[in-house]
Amino acid sequence: MKIGILGTGIVGQTLGAKLDELGHDVTIGTRDVAGTLARADPHPFGFPPFSVWHKDHPGVRLGELAEAARHGEAVINATNGAGSLNALRLAGEQNLAGKVLLDASNPLDFSRGMPPTLTVCNTDSLGEQIQRAFPAAKVVKTLNTVTAFLMVNPALVGGGDHTLFVCGNDQEAKTRATAWLKEWFGWQDVIDLGDISSARGTEMYLPLWLRLWGATGTGMLNVKVVK
Amino acid sequence: MKIGILGTGIVGQTLGAKLDELGHDVTIGTRDVAGTLARADPHPFGFPPFSVWHKDHPGVRLGELAEAARHGEAVINATNGAGSLNALRLAGEQNLAGKVLLDASNPLDFSRGMPPTLTVCNTDSLGEQIQRAFPAAKVVKTLNTVTAFLMVNPALVGGGDHTLFVCGNDQEAKTRATAWLKEWFGWQDVIDLGDISSARGTEMYLPLWLRLWGATGTGMLNVKVVK
Repeated sequence: MKIGILGTGIVGQTLGAKLDELGHDVTIGTRDVAGTLARADPHPFGFPPFSVWHKDHPGVRLGELAEAARHGEAVINATNGAGSLNALRLAGEQNLAGKVLLDASNPLDFSRGMPPTLTVCNTDSLGEQIQRAFPAAKVVKTLNTVTAFLMVNPALVGGGDHTLFVCGNDQEAKTRATAWLKEWFGWQDVIDLGDISSARGTEMYLPLWLRLWGATGTGMLNVKVVK
Repeated sequence: MKIGILGTGIVGQTLGAKLDELGHDVTIGTRDVAGTLARADPHPFGFPPFSVWHKDHPGVRLGELAEAARHGEAVINATNGAGSLNALRLAGEQNLAGKVLLDASNPLDFSRGMPPTLTVCNTDSLGEQIQRAFPAAKVVKTLNTVTAFLMVNPALVGGGDHTLFVCGNDQEAKTRATAWLKEWFGWQDVIDLGDISSARGTEMYLPLWLRLWGATGTGMLNVKVVK
C-alpha cells in the first residue's frame, strides 16, 4: 500500500521503518528535504540524525510534505503537535482530500517547561482542529497515547495485551484504521471512542502518561482498559 | 479509625457504607442536615434518596460538614468538584489541619452539556486548588479515576488487577493513603504519580474515562498500567 508519513522525527522514522519492512511503499515528508538531510546534530535523547537513519532505510523515500501526502493512499500525521496544522497546510488540502489521515500528534506545549502542558484541550482538541481545517480528509486520531516504539510493536510490553483508541467522524475510516493497526503492528484491543471530539480524551490523557513516565522511569508503558 | 466523609452523594454513601462495614467510626457531612434528610427525590440514576440509604446504614453518623471534618482522623472529600472548595471552607480549615485529606473529587462542569468539560485543567487542577486553599491539610488526590462502586471494591472488574493513583506533596500522607486503599478496599496496584500537580494528570484523564463509558456502555471500568 502507498503510505505517506508527515514528519521525520522519531515517530515518522519508526512508523516508516516498520511499514517499509512490511513491504509498503512509503514516502516520508518534511518541510525542507535538503535541510533534513544536512542536519548532523543527534536527537536530544541520543538518536542519530535523520540522514543516518535514512541510510539504514533506503526503501523509504524522502520528499516534501506535499509529495508524501500526494503519494499516500493513507497519510499519517507524525509531526509535532505545535506544528501540525502548518505542516498539513504545506502537505496540501487537495492531497489529503478523501483519504484516511491517521493523526498521531499531540498538542504538547514545551514553552512552560517540563512536564509540557497542552496548546488546546477541554473544549477542543488538535484532532478536531485538524478535521475542521481539512474537512475532506477522514481524520482518525490514534497512536498518540503511546511512544513510537510501542506504536509499531505493542508486544514490547505486557505481551501486547493493552489498549489503543481510535476517534473520528467517518465510521468506515475508523474501521479501516483499526484493521491496519491490527494487521501492521499487531494491536489486539482497539476501542472506538466516538467522533473526533473524543480526541479530547486521548490528548488530555497525555498529562497522566507523562506523569506515569516520570513515576515509573519508563515511557515503555500503556494502559489496558479493564471492564 | 475515625473517618470524616464530606458529601452525601453516591460517592460519600458508598465509601461510608464500606468503611462502616469494616468497623470504622464514620461521620458523613453535609451542608444542611435537615435538608439532606428531607430530600425525597431519587437520584437521576435511580438510587434512593439519602434518608433511605441512611436507614440501611444506621452506624454512619450524619452531621454538618464541620462535624464530619472535626470527627475524622482522616477526611475524605467526596463532594462535587464544582462545590468542593466551598464545602471544604464550611468544613473548616482548622478541622483539616495536619490531617490526611483524601480528595476523590473531579472538577466536572456540566453547564455546557454532556459530556462534561473541566472547570480547571492543563496548568492547574482542583487538587492543587484545594492544597493551596488548605495548606495545613495533607491533600492526597486519589480514587477520582473510578466510579464509586469500584473505589471500594476493585475486584468487581478484572479480578481487581488494575491501577489506582495517588498524588500529593506529603510523602508520609501518600504512604498512609496507599496502605488504607489496600487494606480498606483491596487495591493491589497503587502508583504514586508525584506531587499534587500530578493531580492534573488524573483529573484530565476524566474526559477519556467518560468517552470509555460511552463507548463500552459501562462505567464499571478502569485502566491497568502495563509496562
